Amino acid sequence: MPAGPLSTDLYELTMAAVYFASGKTSISSFELFVRTLPGTRGYLIAAGLEQVISYLEKWRFTAAEIMYLRSIPELGAADPKFFEDFLPNLRFTGDVWAVAEGTPIFAGEPIVRVTAPLPEAQLVETALLTTTLFQTAIASKAARVSEAAGGRPVIEFGGRRAHGTDAAMYAARASYLAGCQATSNLEAGYRFGLPVSGTMSHSWVMSHSDELEAFSRHMEVYGEQSVLLIDTYDPIGAANLIVRAGLQPAAVRLDSGNLARLSLAVRKILDGGGLGETKIFVSGDLDEYKVEALVSSDVPVDGFGVGTALSTSSDAPSLNGVYKLVEIDRGGTMMPLMKLSPEKVTYPGAKQVWRVRDSSGPVHDVLGLRTEANPVGGEPLLSCVVKGGVRQQPMRAIEEVQRYCRSALGSFPKEVRYCRNAAVYPVVISTTLDGLTATLSSKLSERSDTVDWNSRLL
Amino acid sequence: MPAGPLSTDLYELTMAAVYFASGKTSISSFELFVRTLPGTRGYLIAAGLEQVISYLEKWRFTAAEIMYLRSIPELGAADPKFFEDFLPNLRFTGDVWAVAEGTPIFAGEPIVRVTAPLPEAQLVETALLTTTLFQTAIASKAARVSEAAGGRPVIEFGGRRAHGTDAAMYAARASYLAGCQATSNLEAGYRFGLPVSGTMSHSWVMSHSDELEAFSRHMEVYGEQSVLLIDTYDPIGAANLIVRAGLQPAAVRLDSGNLARLSLAVRKILDGGGLGETKIFVSGDLDEYKVEALVSSDVPVDGFGVGTALSTSSDAPSLNGVYKLVEIDRGGTMMPLMKLSPEKVTYPGAKQVWRVRDSSGPVHDVLGLRTEANPVGGEPLLSCVVKGGVRQQPMRAIEEVQRYCRSALGSFPKEVRYCRNAAVYPVVISTTLDGLTATLSSKLSERSDTVDWNSRLL
Repeated sequence: MPAGPLSTDLYELTMAAVYFASGKTSISSFELFVRTLPGTRGYLIAAGLEQVISYLEKWRFTAAEIMYLRSIPELGAADPKFFEDFLPNLRFTGDVWAVAEGTPIFAGEPIVRVTAPLPEAQLVETALLTTTLFQTAIASKAARVSEAAGGRPVIEFGGRRAHGTDAAMYAARASYLAGCQATSNLEAGYRFGLPVSGTMSHSWVMSHSDELEAFSRHMEVYGEQSVLLIDTYDPIGAANLIVRAGLQPAAVRLDSGNLARLSLAVRKILDGGGLGETKIFVSGDLDEYKVEALVSSDVPVDGFGVGTALSTSSDAPSLNGVYKLVEIDRGGTMMPLMKLSPEKVTYPGAKQVWRVRDSSGPVHDVLGLRTEANPVGGEPLLSCVVKGGVRQQPMRAIEEVQRYCRSALGSFPKEVRYCRNAAVYPVVISTTLDGLTATLSSKLSERSDTVDWNSRLL
Repeated sequence: MPAGPLSTDLYELTMAAVYFASGKTSISSFELFVRTLPGTRGYLIAAGLEQVISYLEKWRFTAAEIMYLRSIPELGAADPKFFEDFLPNLRFTGDVWAVAEGTPIFAGEPIVRVTAPLPEAQLVETALLTTTLFQTAIASKAARVSEAAGGRPVIEFGGRRAHGTDAAMYAARASYLAGCQATSNLEAGYRFGLPVSGTMSHSWVMSHSDELEAFSRHMEVYGEQSVLLIDTYDPIGAANLIVRAGLQPAAVRLDSGNLARLSLAVRKILDGGGLGETKIFVSGDLDEYKVEALVSSDVPVDGFGVGTALSTSSDAPSLNGVYKLVEIDRGGTMMPLMKLSPEKVTYPGAKQVWRVRDSSGPVHDVLGLRTEANPVGGEPLLSCVVKGGVRQQPMRAIEEVQRYCRSALGSFPKEVRYCRNAAVYPVVISTTLDGLTATLSSKLSERSDTVDWNSRLL
């Protein structure tokens, strides 16, 4: 459901109140990026941008929300005008540059850049991080699972293990855009037009007098679309039952046990009974590794239902993404900024990423200042999606995003796309950015040698 | 935001359509439980029940949603009356028994039991699982972190890494009820009345000319409530700066580096400067293990800000919880049911959990049929929260849930509450339940020896 402006942290408000009171509304740029890829990931797939844009478009504080904010003891100290004049009229008026959804991205590359008056840019931080990082985590997982399935369909059905009903819906969306064929989640089907798919549950089988009745009743209604779940009691027995009863389901589903062994046995029974067209669909705590193992052992599995691993990105449920102030207007000039905490250095200035290709595909990315010239063969990844608070590009159809993602990822070297021990795709820092970073670092370090520095930051 | 009835899987609808068309609306009971605890967990804390009840109360299909359902190819085969008569009038009319929020629970114990006409009980499955499992996962993590903090306050501020803005809000709620002192999430503060708390960001410091200006400006407005973030450039330098400038903040915050070493050094500087009252608050990728290490090394840390670990339950982002049909009405008698897939046996029948205490606290739980007599010293954990679709208990204040949780968990042996190598708390299967399970298992196994059984399930 559309998140409001209270989907943020208290400190964003306490800071914004003082920025307002001080007239500190300089235009500032913040960049959202992932510091390091989770250990198992060779790449990420950008996702969530559509929700970021729609969040910014609708970003308004209601009177009730403002009344709540005023009641918070800490905020009580803020200038009353902040609640009376500033918040009621607040709209997002800034610019957003972003990487298109479905684009493979790497550590340190800005996914979203917000340039706006400081309080606006600050107040939207939390929701932008939450939205982008979550969907990007899920899309990245889904791309891995889809790759492992080697062209066989993958259906996302992890809604029940997602982090709430909203997360279930957005996880379905992110999974689809990164390669899944369908989702079981109806809210996602309704809201985003995703194809939906489903089979039957164990309770369906158990609620009937026996498996034959359960299967027959389903097929009476849904005919040869039915996917019969055969592992409630004994999969081999159930497969034999289907053959003897002359049922012709679209597929059978195995949800437990040794899927490789069972799929071979079931295939044999089905083929022996003239059901060569009936597919075998498997599920049950699958992830990219299990899918890859089944595919590479060449067992007769025609499709995969993947749940928890997709809806929670189970092995990497969060990305260490941040939203960092990289420049601020000081008297008409955008001054680059950086932070110098141990192990948490950020690159200063507003940046662009160029993806450099040769005839074989992408060979490396260049991370540079946005004002630099394109490197030879380089395509800029960030484009302007919101200008002066107004959306600049129509919403892309989700199928189009999926096609784009498949093609963009498919152009990368196979080694970068490996599930395990993926090759590191090179992200090169431009000479200009490198130079600026070194200059700023040394200025900051000099000053922190002395305990009472209070000179200007730049 | 309130999830609607489309927060479910397609198969729930395809099955419900046939149940409806067949007049198969027998009263059935489903139990929601977690099969096994994640490796690191000695217990779970039940959470999410309040949202389950409010979901069931508002559970209605809108006309637009029904039109969408009709457009799904697979559902096109269903009886038109399902869309015209059944769905528009559908309400939740069943009973719900559940464990109170904040109660410590263990593997296999029903958290929620739904007894309702089969289609209703089936259609709410996905949303009930999503809601209960997510909040229970987060509450369980929060209880561990709070325990590790040994009485020092823990503030949840993981919203930015949560699985979307809704997940951020519910993670804040679950964290609070299981022991956190506050959250940074304003939506959670607004919606649930949770205490909110915040400090300042690195960008605040960077947006000012220097740290002194950044700190002074904050304190001018917020006075001695201010918590100053001192690791943007150099924490030692910043601590000295605070002392020399004569600032008297409530606390300083360290967000990076070696927190043990830095907190000792900063404490010395603050104490030396007469700031013995200024507390040291630490954050930065903390979890229960890091919190415990800081607490046990007795460094001068007064409070913890915990983010990602709490908002995603990072090491166990999902619980393998299920919702299983355990009994169904057959001609006026509730017949117990079970499933016999390899490694996925469930206990049949509608159950109760009794927590058996001696003078020292809980000693074991008994899982039995709900019709059994209370074991000596046993307190039943499941109570009726919804009857005939109507809420039976007023909503509990969240502070009350927190107090109850703290006291309930605190009464367990310390070994069960360990972060690492927790002792296994015994859950005993009652003799009656054990007998019923054995009888049903052997009946089911006999039948699956033969490939063409089609006798009745019971």
